[in-house]
Amino acid sequence: MSSNSFGKLLTVTTFGESHGPAIGCVVDGCPPGLEIAPEEFRHDLERRATGKSRHTSARREADEVEILSGVYEGCTTGTPIALLIRNTDQRSKDYADIARQFRPGHADYTYWQKYGIRDPRGGGRSSARETTMRVAAGVIAKKWLQQRYGVTVRGYLSQLGPIVPAGFAWEAVEDNPFFWPHAAQVPALETYMDALRKSGDSIGARVNVVADGVPAGWGEPIYGKLDGDLAAALMSINAVKGVEIGDGFAAVTQKGTEHRDLMTPDGFLSNHAGGILGGISTGQQVTASIVLKPTSSLRLPGATVDVDGNTVDVITTGRHDPCVGIRATPIAEAMMALVLMDQALRHRAQCGDVGEVPPHVPGSVDG
Amino acid sequence: MSSNSFGKLLTVTTFGESHGPAIGCVVDGCPPGLEIAPEEFRHDLERRATGKSRHTSARREADEVEILSGVYEGCTTGTPIALLIRNTDQRSKDYADIARQFRPGHADYTYWQKYGIRDPRGGGRSSARETTMRVAAGVIAKKWLQQRYGVTVRGYLSQLGPIVPAGFAWEAVEDNPFFWPHAAQVPALETYMDALRKSGDSIGARVNVVADGVPAGWGEPIYGKLDGDLAAALMSINAVKGVEIGDGFAAVTQKGTEHRDLMTPDGFLSNHAGGILGGISTGQQVTASIVLKPTSSLRLPGATVDVDGNTVDVITTGRHDPCVGIRATPIAEAMMALVLMDQALRHRAQCGDVGEVPPHVPGSVDG
Amino acid sequence: MSSNSFGKLLTVTTFGESHGPAIGCVVDGCPPGLEIAPEEFRHDLERRATGKSRHTSARREADEVEILSGVYEGCTTGTPIALLIRNTDQRSKDYADIARQFRPGHADYTYWQKYGIRDPRGGGRSSARETTMRVAAGVIAKKWLQQRYGVTVRGYLSQLGPIVPAGFAWEAVEDNPFFWPHAAQVPALETYMDALRKSGDSIGARVNVVADGVPAGWGEPIYGKLDGDLAAALMSINAVKGVEIGDGFAAVTQKGTEHRDLMTPDGFLSNHAGGILGGISTGQQVTASIVLKPTSSLRLPGATVDVDGNTVDVITTGRHDPCVGIRATPIAEAMMALVLMDQALRHRAQCGDVGEVPPHVPGSVDG
Amino acid sequence: MSSNSFGKLLTVTTFGESHGPAIGCVVDGCPPGLEIAPEEFRHDLERRATGKSRHTSARREADEVEILSGVYEGCTTGTPIALLIRNTDQRSKDYADIARQFRPGHADYTYWQKYGIRDPRGGGRSSARETTMRVAAGVIAKKWLQQRYGVTVRGYLSQLGPIVPAGFAWEAVEDNPFFWPHAAQVPALETYMDALRKSGDSIGARVNVVADGVPAGWGEPIYGKLDGDLAAALMSINAVKGVEIGDGFAAVTQKGTEHRDLMTPDGFLSNHAGGILGGISTGQQVTASIVLKPTSSLRLPGATVDVDGNTVDVITTGRHDPCVGIRATPIAEAMMALVLMDQALRHRAQCGDVGEVPPHVPGSVDG
Repeated sequence: MSSNSFGKLLTVTTFGESHGPAIGCVVDGCPPGLEIAPEEFRHDLERRATGKSRHTSARREADEVEILSGVYEGCTTGTPIALLIRNTDQRSKDYADIARQFRPGHADYTYWQKYGIRDPRGGGRSSARETTMRVAAGVIAKKWLQQRYGVTVRGYLSQLGPIVPAGFAWEAVEDNPFFWPHAAQVPALETYMDALRKSGDSIGARVNVVADGVPAGWGEPIYGKLDGDLAAALMSINAVKGVEIGDGFAAVTQKGTEHRDLMTPDGFLSNHAGGILGGISTGQQVTASIVLKPTSSLRLPGATVDVDGNTVDVITTGRHDPCVGIRATPIAEAMMALVLMDQALRHRAQCGDVGEVPPHVPGSVDG
Repeated sequence: MSSNSFGKLLTVTTFGESHGPAIGCVVDGCPPGLEIAPEEFRHDLERRATGKSRHTSARREADEVEILSGVYEGCTTGTPIALLIRNTDQRSKDYADIARQFRPGHADYTYWQKYGIRDPRGGGRSSARETTMRVAAGVIAKKWLQQRYGVTVRGYLSQLGPIVPAGFAWEAVEDNPFFWPHAAQVPALETYMDALRKSGDSIGARVNVVADGVPAGWGEPIYGKLDGDLAAALMSINAVKGVEIGDGFAAVTQKGTEHRDLMTPDGFLSNHAGGILGGISTGQQVTASIVLKPTSSLRLPGATVDVDGNTVDVITTGRHDPCVGIRATPIAEAMMALVLMDQALRHRAQCGDVGEVPPHVPGSVDG
Repeated sequence: MSSNSFGKLLTVTTFGESHGPAIGCVVDGCPPGLEIAPEEFRHDLERRATGKSRHTSARREADEVEILSGVYEGCTTGTPIALLIRNTDQRSKDYADIARQFRPGHADYTYWQKYGIRDPRGGGRSSARETTMRVAAGVIAKKWLQQRYGVTVRGYLSQLGPIVPAGFAWEAVEDNPFFWPHAAQVPALETYMDALRKSGDSIGARVNVVADGVPAGWGEPIYGKLDGDLAAALMSINAVKGVEIGDGFAAVTQKGTEHRDLMTPDGFLSNHAGGILGGISTGQQVTASIVLKPTSSLRLPGATVDVDGNTVDVITTGRHDPCVGIRATPIAEAMMALVLMDQALRHRAQCGDVGEVPPHVPGSVDG
Repeated sequence: MSSNSFGKLLTVTTFGESHGPAIGCVVDGCPPGLEIAPEEFRHDLERRATGKSRHTSARREADEVEILSGVYEGCTTGTPIALLIRNTDQRSKDYADIARQFRPGHADYTYWQKYGIRDPRGGGRSSARETTMRVAAGVIAKKWLQQRYGVTVRGYLSQLGPIVPAGFAWEAVEDNPFFWPHAAQVPALETYMDALRKSGDSIGARVNVVADGVPAGWGEPIYGKLDGDLAAALMSINAVKGVEIGDGFAAVTQKGTEHRDLMTPDGFLSNHAGGILGGISTGQQVTASIVLKPTSSLRLPGATVDVDGNTVDVITTGRHDPCVGIRATPIAEAMMALVLMDQALRHRAQCGDVGEVPPHVPGSVDG
């Protein structure tokens, strides 16, 4: 399988460079009969978009999705769904100066070491622009999971540098540009980000993703575990340096009596496991948490080398987020949704369907 | 691909239940001409083995590996290498009492929910016994990486519950049953573990794995990233709830100027990235860290349900480690070695060989 | 995926050399709850076995299958099913003389060219002995297809060198050692084979395989077509040099009005397509035909070279079939059954289940 | 892996329907540094194009390939290469009448049975239009194989209904619209086709494909055999009902002494095997032959049913080739080239490079 693809039965292949003609993806394996329209991609793409507020990069893309295939008269047909977004705001000149330099903390150096050639414009293939297509593909997965199983996947920023939420409400998350779960802290976040941007520096962050409604039984031992797939999917997001399921690293200092989730006929009494045991969903909330490193594209100079091995000081003058973690929220949601849908199909293949199947739509094979 | 397989070019497929006739694996894709003998598996299998000391489970398996195929006159032939270990110490009776109960924190419940049938003996397929074959497969990968590229993969216990190393020396790691990097603390660890075992409880742990000598250029964007593969491989180990690369979650509170690894003509000035940028190795140490949850098999009773939905109190009377993290060290090493060897082969396929082939020249077909 | 594996959801991995300690396979993805016992493998393995009659090789293996995993109390559990057969009749000395020679028409030369090392005993990995495990895996697929969908897969020898069947009856096929569909011709076949064996030469053959009861809708466009999968699976059988679906090469000279299968409300009026259109089953019989080349292991000398490039005359003195096509019948059946089961699971994953699902067995998720 | 993808290391994913907005493909795994320009696709696309002569369909597409990604300053970068062709000549009205009917011999019925929904315009996903992207992807593979290993892949029409070549010259093949290897027969072919078109009927054909320069050692036992991969790749072409390697079905009546290719220090004395033994290339010409059924889209009425199960007579009024086999030649070449390039990369991964690396020395890790 292409290394630019993921998913066993719901397979997503992305392509495109930051400043090439277009980015796109092919989503294959989607059941037939799912209604999907181009405008349905807009909401999540806007949530991810750069330029959403002054706290993220000033670059603004139209990001209009064109459906090239796999949808007929508004319904998926079971054939591959190709989605395309033209790159309209490329500004290659911003990057021309550093085409021969390796920005510290970037993939510039490793792509060059691997391939001996690289597209330096805007980070090329390694740009976070690629994640746009993940979000687009995720829209399909989210809709199918919701319609078919009532599953919802939501995320939020759970830490911004030193700041942690002082409260939690899902309703707050979509009401501020930080995906922050506690409205009262938003002014403090804005102050923090303004100072950071002024300083020319950047900051790390943490994002949590949660799936509600996942039935027990999704996930495949041993190397197709639900948490293994989530770890790969989330770690593949640009700037992610760590993935936790459930309590994650807090379990290092936990006792067994503290960590184990006791059960009663009414269900589990806790969810330290993050809804996954032995790689298979328990029927509880599936929870994951990721760390996004601070972006290395800074206005503050840093020592590096150029392609000839000379010492240079590099300053990134392009548009960059001082905290890439903020808009990682919809990306992480998309990756979790895609993994869940893939596992749902895999489970149905081996074990038959779970739960209540809605009445078949006339003429459709799959409800 | 089977969900009991991993690796794209070096593919490992494992099979077997804890108390079935045997466990085994098939390692496919290994280059021909590697010398390998049955006794070479012994060292790492002993490092992983239960019964190594009083601080791990008392179960003792001979764990003699039989090479069934793929090796002729002591050399790999390029055909699949099948390894088999008979289960000789099964003691199914230990588990008979809980065949109808779901141990909290175990895969018992999820396997039953998924498949409607499970082998309850010793955890069946979900037992950590399966990891024996990972370690065996890892021996092949370690040897090939060492011979071919001079790569070494080593691990150590970097936290045992509340205890963190007060010093670090690789030489210490193999001289104590804890894989602990600071010899002076070993008596304290023994005291801690003795008290823990007496209490009937268990504890979490953290394991670090490090690869030295990895050349720049291994790893494939976007969904075949080296860190993505490591995340999946390490998360698939029993009891692992989190994976970090490089600084991992510490990056949440780091500034960009703090995290980015500056470069000079003599190399990088730091390694916050853990030797991976954009999913591709930088040529530095590749570092990962994992958390192992405290085992849920406890002598202390805990509320759960049985297959009929009745409330029961379960006590695990079998042999279990109070800290499964301790012997996870060689397992994590094996997983990292297998991922690295797979990526080495993938890199050689697309970009030609490293170390023997001249640097990529622009305009050449490939290196 | 390992090149010694096939199947996307029902994945079969085989291992082992002709004269190594054992051959085996891992069958992964089988739904839980299928009853399977070691003795159920016997029938098809005997049908395939060498030594069945004087018309096939005199080598006789016990070929007792040991189930190593994936089956608990007689039922599949959903975890990988490992099957093992020890090689008990190895007689390596038969082959010692030709270890340094390349038998013309054999894989000796190509394995050596590819790997620079080979196991010369009995053809090593390239021996038809490997197909034993395909037949074993096929037993599971045949049973599941029969129980779940009422599908049967049967084959017969449709041509032996110049001899074609003068009549057809399925009942005849299993009543003679040739899998020949017309009983009256069996004495003529015996006479032909006796003369052939006396001459020291060998002969080609054709085998047909037919699946009844396959519902419409199995198969996946574009590169996972049912006929594409069948072509790969059947071509991978030793000595096969061609694969046809339906009318196959006869279609070269057919007109469109002749080839197309007209439809009425009662079904198709013909089946030139072999039950597959656009890569998807039509609901008719699925039919395939393969050619098996005459074995190149002959007692008649032939010019070849040795590993040093010298001219030598090679005579094969080991045990070999003068017509390998005869016992290819159960192998071809197995491959078709495995492909169909894989496609059935893939169809269920994407499109939900087809047809009447039998009542669930108590406790099982999948009927 | 997506069923709309093929290839393990050189992975091609195609998407698009005959009358949707566009068709396209993603080619992943191509080594970096290969020069490729949009105009290089033109030659083979024209060879495949409908409308090339009055003997193929009158539909004419511009078929201008746009390179969307993976190429920077005219060179491949190692990242996925996306190619796009807009559908400019759709004429959906041609097909509107039969949207509710199942054309006999077409995938209409099977897509409907599988998915419960289909894009009826021009055959939708099942249209031969999809093969345009195979040809485009094949251009990349042909160029790389030629540059890197001196491999050439060529095809020709080897039978048109009852007509077989009376002579053979590669030079002739590209000088006539039939890819026919004997110039003197071209008028007779034209006469035959004119009469056929007049009659409203269609005819089958046979296409041969040949690769020169393939080094010994490409191909992977057991289920990744070179001939197995070729069989799958060629059978996946629309209308193909059979695949032969080397002598193919002629081997049914051959003796072993006749079929086996004897060897001398100067090479093989014949090539009945088609350049493949044990699934691995011998270093000789690799030869394959396929049958293309007569198209079922005829102006002559034929009985069928509609989606409601009523009997109807269907007449296809759209543009269709009376012999689809003619323009299958470049498609078959493309598929063989793609398979060979994939196997070349796979071989390089496991065994090191050929042609540049010294012969395997016993005892070495790999060549």
